[in-house]
Amino acid sequence: MAVGDVAMPHMHVVKGVKIGSTEAYIRYPNRRDLVVFEFSPGSKVAGVFTQNAFCAAPVTVSKSHLAQVDARYLVINTGNANAATGQIGLDNAQLSCNELAKLAGVSNTEILPFSTGVIGEQLPIERLIAGLPAALANLNENAWLDAATGIMTTDTTPKGASEQFELDGIQYSITGISKGAGMIRPNMATMLGFVATDVPISQHVLKQMLNESVNQSFNRITVDGDTSTNDSCILVATGQAGGQELTSIDDPRYAELLTIVNRVMARLAQLIIRDGEGATKFISVTVEGGANTQECCDVAYSIAHSPLIKTAMFASDPNWGRILCAIGYAGVPNLDVTQVQVWLDDVQICRDGGAAADYTEQAGAKVMAQAEITVRVDLGRGSAKDTVYTCDLSYDYVKINADYRS
Amino acid sequence: MAVGDVAMPHMHVVKGVKIGSTEAYIRYPNRRDLVVFEFSPGSKVAGVFTQNAFCAAPVTVSKSHLAQVDARYLVINTGNANAATGQIGLDNAQLSCNELAKLAGVSNTEILPFSTGVIGEQLPIERLIAGLPAALANLNENAWLDAATGIMTTDTTPKGASEQFELDGIQYSITGISKGAGMIRPNMATMLGFVATDVPISQHVLKQMLNESVNQSFNRITVDGDTSTNDSCILVATGQAGGQELTSIDDPRYAELLTIVNRVMARLAQLIIRDGEGATKFISVTVEGGANTQECCDVAYSIAHSPLIKTAMFASDPNWGRILCAIGYAGVPNLDVTQVQVWLDDVQICRDGGAAADYTEQAGAKVMAQAEITVRVDLGRGSAKDTVYTCDLSYDYVKINADYRS
Repeated sequence: MAVGDVAMPHMHVVKGVKIGSTEAYIRYPNRRDLVVFEFSPGSKVAGVFTQNAFCAAPVTVSKSHLAQVDARYLVINTGNANAATGQIGLDNAQLSCNELAKLAGVSNTEILPFSTGVIGEQLPIERLIAGLPAALANLNENAWLDAATGIMTTDTTPKGASEQFELDGIQYSITGISKGAGMIRPNMATMLGFVATDVPISQHVLKQMLNESVNQSFNRITVDGDTSTNDSCILVATGQAGGQELTSIDDPRYAELLTIVNRVMARLAQLIIRDGEGATKFISVTVEGGANTQECCDVAYSIAHSPLIKTAMFASDPNWGRILCAIGYAGVPNLDVTQVQVWLDDVQICRDGGAAADYTEQAGAKVMAQAEITVRVDLGRGSAKDTVYTCDLSYDYVKINADYRS
Repeated sequence: MAVGDVAMPHMHVVKGVKIGSTEAYIRYPNRRDLVVFEFSPGSKVAGVFTQNAFCAAPVTVSKSHLAQVDARYLVINTGNANAATGQIGLDNAQLSCNELAKLAGVSNTEILPFSTGVIGEQLPIERLIAGLPAALANLNENAWLDAATGIMTTDTTPKGASEQFELDGIQYSITGISKGAGMIRPNMATMLGFVATDVPISQHVLKQMLNESVNQSFNRITVDGDTSTNDSCILVATGQAGGQELTSIDDPRYAELLTIVNRVMARLAQLIIRDGEGATKFISVTVEGGANTQECCDVAYSIAHSPLIKTAMFASDPNWGRILCAIGYAGVPNLDVTQVQVWLDDVQICRDGGAAADYTEQAGAKVMAQAEITVRVDLGRGSAKDTVYTCDLSYDYVKINADYRS
């Protein structure tokens, strides 16, 4: 059960983007597990990928293709990650591109492949290839929900965000989907995120926009601290809604659009946490008063990764000593603990490094009983601030991960 | 239920060490929760303590006292950590020393205080003080088991190690106890470990011996990655069994004795893992072929902390892709994954970065079904090697930590 409002919004059409999908029996029968995106000619495509050294075969191929030319198609399967699969895996990822390129009449470098699912098993490439014609046959502009469903693994709900907006009097759309619930501590991207807009944007500006946005969204979430082998996030600008191409970050439209992209990316990233494996709580960890962003993030992740804090959250137990403990081992150089303040929402639990005199267990318990909780830490040594999003650690996380594959 | 053989051995008397204990009702009634150690005059004492910035009040006091003079007494309570308790906590830790000093007729700096239990609540110092006469009244040489029991928190079993040995024809003893089951990823020491020998050793050599030994034992275990506020490990040399004082690490007895101390420390540290909260498996993670010790430890901890690997271990599921994934995000610079080999015990699961051709799921499942499992990784880039010990992540870990305090 996901936490809070995770409903799919109306998914606005993005001019120049079509989506087809099918049931290819990659791992399970009767399940939508193969998705193809088609972008209109001239679309600009930017991507960020996992920094895991054991990055998956499709990640290697996508990075290589994207470095050569803007993509016209994405081919995405769930059920198998095609990671730790050696040369055969690389060949299979390449083969999926070659076959789709043939069917679509484009160059194979114009295809980006993506996979998600079990690591270490070979992709059933024949089934994937056999599914391509059916996916291409139902390409249409209104299939974002199908796409969101077709990339799920342990996700309990499809994840989408979509907005319409005006820039210089022209109406545009931005629509995106994401997936992921476990093995989530993205480093440069999420498990999988695909976002498209019909604003015309140059490749250079698009890449900058994606980097900025991912660093405040997908790179600020963690379920279990496990950085996946397959994290990928793609931002596409088809330019099909018209207007002048955005070619500089000094163009005033850049800041306007970045705000919207950030909002969509943040929503897609936070949806992953709301649907975190076994999650019953959505937890924001804000660390302010840091000397720099790095130490704010170090402290926030230290709290967000602590199994003791995550289980206390699950139990709605304001066992705040565990929070101080996690701050204490985050490795902040020369931390003066007497300057540290900690709040649960608006309830101050720690003042100047010790229990706040006016804190009551009752007040703490009231906050902890909520489904959405903010832990706020003030380090009292600077003006940097950052926020990381996470969920609690429940019986169901163990159940899901002890049972997955079986 | 602890994993494997955790039985208390015969706890040999260490000449010059007496132990008294009592039920002081620190947190729960009818529970041995206050322990006093007495060392004969002239004993040398070395200690290592947590590096958590929010270190507990007794840690601060013990470090200060130990810097001034060798200790004659330890006073240890369970049920309350006296951590994140501010000036009141420091005063209470000092008060416990003052009161014991008065009763024992020594200086208060000759007392080291230790606490373990809930963080962030004030120590009930009156009850602790009220219990001191009873603890002193039953001081005796044969109370190591009582001491091991009297320092337990969520531990399910008391933890001890003891050996007799000869150096230069003289018979000596070494006996120690430890405690801890959760909030375990010691950094310089364990939750609590107390080890004593009657070999005469100079303060300087004793300190060196403790550091070397702790780095191969208590600093190589993790249950949940949470470095506690109270970690402390004390090594005492009473010298009461006679012989010449060991004053140099070049003395051949040093190496002989170090081997024994290492064995005792390793046993005490591993007992903590065998009794890790909710543990059903005892897992050794050995990383070899590293360029240096640091990267071996980084990879080993990456595996040992991964909730995905720990839940797979719990489920006896040889989901080895998760192991490669954890190696991949451990941050080893320029790791060539095609050089990486991985074994579960003697079963090679990964060869040259991909699935080993001769690996069968059956063979992997057989190893994973065992209660004791070794994950061995060869990074293929050097000759450094290190081992970290951990346990699995089960429903009971969540249960214990969701319920603790209640």
